[in-house]
Order: sequence, then structure tokens, then C-alpha cells
Amino acid sequence: MSVRNLLLLSNSTIHGSGYLEWAAQHIQDFLKSKEVKKVLFVPYALRTMDNYTETARKKFTSWGFELDGIHTSVDPVAAVNNAEAIFIGGGNTFQLLKGLYDNKLIEPIRKRVLQDGVPYIGSSAGTNVSTVSINTTNDMPIVFPPSFDALALVPFNINPHYIDANPGSTHMGETREERINQYHEIPGTPPVLGLREGALLKVTGDLALLMGLHPARLFRPGKQPEEFPVATDFSFLLK
Amino acid sequence: MSVRNLLLLSNSTIHGSGYLEWAAQHIQDFLKSKEVKKVLFVPYALRTMDNYTETARKKFTSWGFELDGIHTSVDPVAAVNNAEAIFIGGGNTFQLLKGLYDNKLIEPIRKRVLQDGVPYIGSSAGTNVSTVSINTTNDMPIVFPPSFDALALVPFNINPHYIDANPGSTHMGETREERINQYHEIPGTPPVLGLREGALLKVTGDLALLMGLHPARLFRPGKQPEEFPVATDFSFLLK
Repeated sequence: MSVRNLLLLSNSTIHGSGYLEWAAQHIQDFLKSKEVKKVLFVPYALRTMDNYTETARKKFTSWGFELDGIHTSVDPVAAVNNAEAIFIGGGNTFQLLKGLYDNKLIEPIRKRVLQDGVPYIGSSAGTNVSTVSINTTNDMPIVFPPSFDALALVPFNINPHYIDANPGSTHMGETREERINQYHEIPGTPPVLGLREGALLKVTGDLALLMGLHPARLFRPGKQPEEFPVATDFSFLLK
Repeated sequence: MSVRNLLLLSNSTIHGSGYLEWAAQHIQDFLKSKEVKKVLFVPYALRTMDNYTETARKKFTSWGFELDGIHTSVDPVAAVNNAEAIFIGGGNTFQLLKGLYDNKLIEPIRKRVLQDGVPYIGSSAGTNVSTVSINTTNDMPIVFPPSFDALALVPFNINPHYIDANPGSTHMGETREERINQYHEIPGTPPVLGLREGALLKVTGDLALLMGLHPARLFRPGKQPEEFPVATDFSFLLK
């Protein structure tokens, strides 16, 4: 029986709406149900960490929560060990994962979330790093992390910002589906859940629920991809 | 005075045309001017290497050249050392670069191309690995190579399949330009030449010429991106 509490967002901002607005109610309910007062924010995915933290702080303050940026802490491991809740924001997944390794935070975050039940919110890159690996990120590999292995808070991968092929496009780069299929040609790779912008997965212990605005697309090695509607119980992916 | 001879294609296939057809004349002229009879093909970017080599062989044979797949060689380093010309095809850039490292081919190819003047053709991922690093690939990181450092046959990076932002899109993932700009926020990064599908760069010693069907977009740290028309002399990037 796992004690994890995860809110894994495909993305932070949907078209025509403000930062995190589409997920505002989900985030507030998630944190209030755990009586969280203060959130530890991990801004490593962007290089402008002060500005990024201000953006996040403004939003979380408007909802009644305090927020600290981990990058201003002299001891990031201690900050994780004392955190009431952790929010890892989007940006570049490679930069983010390298930041987690450089600051020796992989094991401390794993322990806090999987053993102590500390609530974890991830968005975009912050969702990528919550999974088995960053092998299915969409980002450009602008820095070299020591590994693609990530926090493994769940035993599968997520492709955030999942997007369907545009049948009118003349561009010959691989579609998202083709890229994920190429990943699954490699033996031993885990399932990949494609979360469209405006979708999120809420994981409570051994229960995983699709929430938000759009169906999700599930890719499994050797199988045809499948569509699942909002409110699907994805707990079978946690086994 | 460099002896290198490179033909760096953005991509293999443009919309509505067959494999390598758009570049057929460029490739034939390039190889015939060097009196090449046989090409060594590197198919590491795809996992179906036999099929991939057959596709390439069919095309090159129709042009009057022989073609061998390096993956069938018992000694790939010897194959490189004996090659008259090298063609590295597209697919997944991470898989390709890992294949070059696993087979200990980075230094042998560098030496053959930069010291012996062996003609090198790259397409898509094969163009990515010819540059300083694969930091500006578009591909999904489906495998973990030991480094992102590549062959460095030129002292800059290329973004193949370069694509302009679609002003009508509601998708919130970063545009290509935003991704390259994020790369350039990192100190010490080289220029990035965005080659649209159907564009190629021909490098002869210290001369670099843009050829093909489309203008290229050049990104340099701290500068506004610039457009350059077909036939631009990009030799300044080689200094």
C-alpha cells in the first residue's frame, strides 16, 4: 500500500488562459485536503529561477498558500526533508533533471514522496521527472544530465503536451506517436501515457485517475495505442 | 586549410517526393566529383538496419554507386578506415550517437573526414552528429548516449527540419526558435544554423555554401536570429 499523493499536470498554461489557471481548482483541492500551508517550489527547469519563483509565488499566494524557491536554500536536501509539499515546474526537462542530480535530490524527493506521503505536484517537465525516465520528454537536450533515470514515483512514463498528428501538415519530422513507437521498439521500456494539454493524472496511493479536459492516449509495447476518456481509472498502470 | 568535404542535408525526404529525391543531383555531383565508387552507410539511427540499408542501397545503386551497411562489418573501425565515402542516415539522433560511441567510431570518422578528406554525407540525425553536439536535435531521447558531444566536423551546431512557428497554433509547447534560444542561454554554446526541410549545407575545406530549396535561419547567442537566402556563403561559421 503506497502513501504517495501526486498531481501530474500535462502543462502549466493552456491557450487563452493564465499560468496554472486551468488546473487551479485541482491544485487547491489537492493541497487543502492535505492541510498544506507552504509549498517548496523547484524552478530548475528554467534558468531565470528568481523570476520563475515569483510567478509561481504570486499564483499560489492568491490561492492562500506560501511558496519558497528551493534555489535560494543553502541546503536543498534539508529543504526537501522539511517540505510540506513539493511543486516541480515546467521548462527544459534535461536542465531540470540535471539540477536534481547536481543537488543530490533524487533520493531525498523519492523518500519524502513514496515513504512520507508528501504531496507532489508536477507540471510538464516536472511531470516528466516524476516518472521512470525522461526518455519521452519533448524537450531539446540543451544540457547533459548524468542519466535519463528520473524519480520513478510511478512505474511508467508520461508524454506531456501530447499532440495528435496534424493531417494537413507537410512537415516530415516524426509525429509524436511515431516517436513514442520508436521508444517502444527498445526492449524493456515501460508504458507511456500521452497527456494532452489540459489533462492531469491524480495518484492517491495505488489509485490513478485521469482528470482535466481531455482524453489520454496510452502506448504499450507491442500493442495498438488506446484512447481513454476523462475519469478513467488508470490504477492498472501502477501495478 | 581543411580538407573536409561535407554534404549536410536537413532531411532525407520532402513532402510529396521519394527518399533523397530532392537532393539527388547534389549527392551525385558530390560523390562523382571525388570519383567515389562505393559508399559506407551508417544506419545506426534506426533499429531496422537491414531494411534501412536496403532502402539506401536501392537509391545509391540507381545512381551508379555501390553501398555497404557498416552494421554487417565484423570490424566497423576498419570499415571506416577503408571507406571511400561515408553516409550517415537519419532516424533517432540519440540512438545514432550511442551507436557511434558503442562502436568506437567517433575518432576514426573524425580522422578520415578531417585529415584524409573522405567525403561525408549526413542527413537529419546524420547532420546532427556531424556538428559540435546533438544538443539541438529535435528527437526524443529514447536511449542514453555516453555524451552529447558529436563528431565536430564543423565548429557550430545545426538544427535540421527547422520549422517556423505556426501563428494559428493553440499548442503551448515551445516553438523551435524558443528551444534554440533556451540553448543559447547557456554560456559558451556555439551558433545554431536552422536548416529547413529541403535545404543543405555544402562544406568544402573552409568554404560553406547554403544550397537547396529554402533560406536558412541563423541563431547566435546574444543576437537576433537572421535569415539567409540560398547560395549564402556561410564560411564565417567555420572560423
